[in-house]
Amino acid sequence: MIPNDTIVALATPSGSGAIAVIRLSGPEAMRIAGTIFRSVSGKSLEKQSTHTVHLGHIVDGERDIDEVLVTVFKNPNSYTGEDVVEISCHGSSYIQQEIIQLALRSGCRMANAGEFTLRAFLNGKLDLSQAEAVADLISSDNEASHQIAMQQMRGGFSNEIAKLREELLNFASLIELELDFAEEDVEFADRKQFKDLTERISFVLKRLIDSFAVGNVIKNGIPVAIVGEPNVGKSTLLNALLNEDRAIVSEIAGTTRDTIEDEIAIGGIGFRFIDTAGIRDTTDTVERIGIKKTFEKIEQAQVVIYLFDSTDFKSQGSKFKVELEKIKNKYPQKPLIVLANKVDKIEARELSMLKSQIPEVLELSAKTGFGVDQLTHALLNLINTGALRNNETIVTNTRHYDALLKAFEEIKKVQYGLDTGLSGDLLAIDIRQALYHFGEITGEITNDDLLGNIFANFCIGK
Amino acid sequence: MIPNDTIVALATPSGSGAIAVIRLSGPEAMRIAGTIFRSVSGKSLEKQSTHTVHLGHIVDGERDIDEVLVTVFKNPNSYTGEDVVEISCHGSSYIQQEIIQLALRSGCRMANAGEFTLRAFLNGKLDLSQAEAVADLISSDNEASHQIAMQQMRGGFSNEIAKLREELLNFASLIELELDFAEEDVEFADRKQFKDLTERISFVLKRLIDSFAVGNVIKNGIPVAIVGEPNVGKSTLLNALLNEDRAIVSEIAGTTRDTIEDEIAIGGIGFRFIDTAGIRDTTDTVERIGIKKTFEKIEQAQVVIYLFDSTDFKSQGSKFKVELEKIKNKYPQKPLIVLANKVDKIEARELSMLKSQIPEVLELSAKTGFGVDQLTHALLNLINTGALRNNETIVTNTRHYDALLKAFEEIKKVQYGLDTGLSGDLLAIDIRQALYHFGEITGEITNDDLLGNIFANFCIGK
Repeated sequence: MIPNDTIVALATPSGSGAIAVIRLSGPEAMRIAGTIFRSVSGKSLEKQSTHTVHLGHIVDGERDIDEVLVTVFKNPNSYTGEDVVEISCHGSSYIQQEIIQLALRSGCRMANAGEFTLRAFLNGKLDLSQAEAVADLISSDNEASHQIAMQQMRGGFSNEIAKLREELLNFASLIELELDFAEEDVEFADRKQFKDLTERISFVLKRLIDSFAVGNVIKNGIPVAIVGEPNVGKSTLLNALLNEDRAIVSEIAGTTRDTIEDEIAIGGIGFRFIDTAGIRDTTDTVERIGIKKTFEKIEQAQVVIYLFDSTDFKSQGSKFKVELEKIKNKYPQKPLIVLANKVDKIEARELSMLKSQIPEVLELSAKTGFGVDQLTHALLNLINTGALRNNETIVTNTRHYDALLKAFEEIKKVQYGLDTGLSGDLLAIDIRQALYHFGEITGEITNDDLLGNIFANFCIGK
Repeated sequence: MIPNDTIVALATPSGSGAIAVIRLSGPEAMRIAGTIFRSVSGKSLEKQSTHTVHLGHIVDGERDIDEVLVTVFKNPNSYTGEDVVEISCHGSSYIQQEIIQLALRSGCRMANAGEFTLRAFLNGKLDLSQAEAVADLISSDNEASHQIAMQQMRGGFSNEIAKLREELLNFASLIELELDFAEEDVEFADRKQFKDLTERISFVLKRLIDSFAVGNVIKNGIPVAIVGEPNVGKSTLLNALLNEDRAIVSEIAGTTRDTIEDEIAIGGIGFRFIDTAGIRDTTDTVERIGIKKTFEKIEQAQVVIYLFDSTDFKSQGSKFKVELEKIKNKYPQKPLIVLANKVDKIEARELSMLKSQIPEVLELSAKTGFGVDQLTHALLNLINTGALRNNETIVTNTRHYDALLKAFEEIKKVQYGLDTGLSGDLLAIDIRQALYHFGEITGEITNDDLLGNIFANFCIGK
């Protein structure tokens, strides 16, 4: 399984920049780099110590391709665990291509997506869940997803699993040992202790499985439906949220400039705002279709913001209240924030009337920024990020989630077996199954298909 | 003029990739990097030797931002000539931002465009024309422009200028010395030798000035107008040119998918293909506008390809010949290539008739690839790249071109002064002027405005 060829790829983003880094890894990395690199010092690359940088030129015979810095990492002290050479060249796409082509002609093979990290895994530099965290880390675009990926890369998640797996393995051995002495009817494995262990395991698994809902939301951004008619100030509100020193994360693909669908990071959490129309009562067919769509969008959201123009409250307040009731009745479980915008434009008397009729209302002036802080607090409070704050392990990966669910099922079977006095040989089978699913997460149990699937999602060069 | 602050910027292209490199340069680079980097080895960054790489974490207090490799370059052995620290982090935009923000909070200033290279120039690591070559190198997208930039970066161009400047300076000193002894009427500067020198200088300047036309074309791609109606096979032809193992350089901005305007590197030279409509005779107003546009495009092109469908020759041959005559009459100087496409679809008898009527025609089957080689040879032959092949210095930079023109003018004045026996003091003024323009190229003569203009065209991080 250990590869014996040398791979090459661009490690930095494609396109033009000041510099670009091309990475070679494999048993021949030093030799190949040595043939295309002419050091200013004249010393051969293979004789240089690990973790040193050398100025020189990449040459193709007599042709000078670029002045570069070359960094040498000697196995096992490299990212992949193999010999690695990093060429830091001028960031022209043409030069990048020329150097990669030259490396290919000189004996390298083009790296597949994720192949550097795959090699790091195969060489024991990372376990599988840590390798997966590398991809998550690269695609992390807000504080929360970054923190989860960092934690997973540090091994927080797999350490927890590995520890439980070891204890379980221990019991499995004892029970299997009993089988060898079946005729003597001894019990090496203390059933009481074993039951305690399965309970601890269940507890941890349950917590990890439950964290997936939070984790998934954090990784993908929390969908927030803004229910409000045009001109109530939706885009001003989003701008106000942005202006509070928060960054636009992305404009969601496929949306036009007309609808306001932005991802904004607030307090390190990504919120995905979904624009909807109002939901007023109507007999008009076209409008009814619009209202149906609004409800569909609310369905997808985790949080609903009901935004109305407080200067319209006098004339349309009863309509607003009907709409609010509709939402509450249809989605009693869904967190709802009611926002009265443009409160700077109404009189104090009007405002207090409004507040008496809709007690939960938050006051807002998206234009002046008044009330924006209160709103962000409300949004963050709605999201249960207790786990995040307590630095607990959060599962974000569907593959891990599936394996955890399966392991949980098997542990339940083991517990049932213990409760019903199941024979050791049958118990052992269930334990082995649970162990198998634990191993899937950390990569102790793998197969080529699984690895292929995981690393195919990486970018080339990682 | 030597800066005393420490700058930071992303050095790799923006966007997501396996890794990204953030560069710090300045007197405080080591100290600032030391405060945000926690080395795995525990050794302080400031105590590490130059050109070494260190594994560790970028931390903001207790918060772990990323596992990184940090490379240390100690002044004067760095790109800028200052202390430089390069942080190689995971290539997520979020992480890049976090690290740059942290560096800014820790005492760095955001680098301006080109400021790293400006510092390299101020510290005498590069002369001005070499610094400019760095920007050209990064934007080079074919072999020819790359080769010119490399040559300029190696100092080929400025060495030549610097040598002439020194000789001229020598004579200027002698003539100025004569002025001190004006009453004694001596001649320290041998007028005959001086005249020889000005002739040599004129010759070199003339050659460099003339190379600008070639250089400019190579740098920006050679515009080729393809005259041909829809369906004669223009896009098939471009694809055939591409399939011959040539890379698309870029799709020219602002063109739609409907018109075929591509830049293709052939034999290392960029060719910019401009799609035009036919030019048949017409009384239709709309069509006449189209034909006017075709001529405008031919005007912009350096080469014209007239492409027609040979299966239509029987019925429309006389029209083709009229169109060809029109082009030849209007642009007698412009290189013209006549291509008969789809020759695989006509009979031998028809083909020989076609060739007898249009003797210069090149046969082509864009679909099968037949004749594509012949076409690329013809294209390359049309372009005078003798200078390129002979490794001569080629001027591509408008600023250099202007300075060379001005220096040439002054040298002409000096020559005229020598011929007419102009007095030493007046001669000295012209010589100083010529020296000034030489100095402008290499950067011995600079001012803040000039530097500002030059480096503003760089990308940030370089």
